[in-house]
Amino acid sequence: MRSVGADYGIEPGKVHMPEKPFVLSVKVVIRDAEGRCLVIRRSQASKYNAGKWDFPGGKVDAGESFDEALLREVEEEVGLRIRLTRVAGSTESEMPDRKVAYLIMEGQVVAGQSRLSEEHDRLDWCAIEELLDVGLCQQFLAFAGSYARQVGG
Amino acid sequence: MRSVGADYGIEPGKVHMPEKPFVLSVKVVIRDAEGRCLVIRRSQASKYNAGKWDFPGGKVDAGESFDEALLREVEEEVGLRIRLTRVAGSTESEMPDRKVAYLIMEGQVVAGQSRLSEEHDRLDWCAIEELLDVGLCQQFLAFAGSYARQVGG
Repeated sequence: MRSVGADYGIEPGKVHMPEKPFVLSVKVVIRDAEGRCLVIRRSQASKYNAGKWDFPGGKVDAGESFDEALLREVEEEVGLRIRLTRVAGSTESEMPDRKVAYLIMEGQVVAGQSRLSEEHDRLDWCAIEELLDVGLCQQFLAFAGSYARQVGG
Repeated sequence: MRSVGADYGIEPGKVHMPEKPFVLSVKVVIRDAEGRCLVIRRSQASKYNAGKWDFPGGKVDAGESFDEALLREVEEEVGLRIRLTRVAGSTESEMPDRKVAYLIMEGQVVAGQSRLSEEHDRLDWCAIEELLDVGLCQQFLAFAGSYARQVGG
């Protein structure tokens, strides 16, 4: 007999909503020659985290590899071509209908001039030690703290 | 004029090999009711890290979402159906031809009996505080230390 409840980790006799699925989002901390980090401010029209500061990147579409997705998002959002240098960290957030698992890479600019899409209204290069004060989206605060310790900011 | 060098971060006048691409691997720390972690030993026939202990999981195939890939790998490798509970961490490793970015999730068993595939020759449930001593693949040592501190092992 197939236990349908087991799909959602439901214990017999308890009523639960189905668990939210995880989706993957890939972000990147782009560093410049002085070691500053590129941050972008989410526009007031954003459905979530309007006015909060974010790192470039986004959801990995079906059929896309994670690095293709990230390079595409970065070019769309900030007009830059980057290369990925290493893994910087991970975090998660919870939305009404899903959870988001974030893999955060570190990268460097190889070409392009920075410009914004409609999704963001400001762009800044921020010193590592200022990352925690810039007004990042909540889900990146713990990451920013450990990243600053990790890279000695 | 298109700068080919910029694709690889090559500075003019320097000779570099093209950089290794990143691939994504998703791993999971499966916890049991006592909080122990499932670890599996890589068989002696493994091309890399033979005899080292690993977490279940693996590469995300093209067209697969990261959670589908992870649930598939776990069922193939250890015969268990799991649910993902949260993001546990990240790390990376370097292979001859590529770099691997690891996103490490945490999960729980919902169904199945543990058994091994040909890729592994032993399976163990390990207390958090023993994770660092079990003989994990090198790339998971720093993760295991921070994970143990994070979950209070």
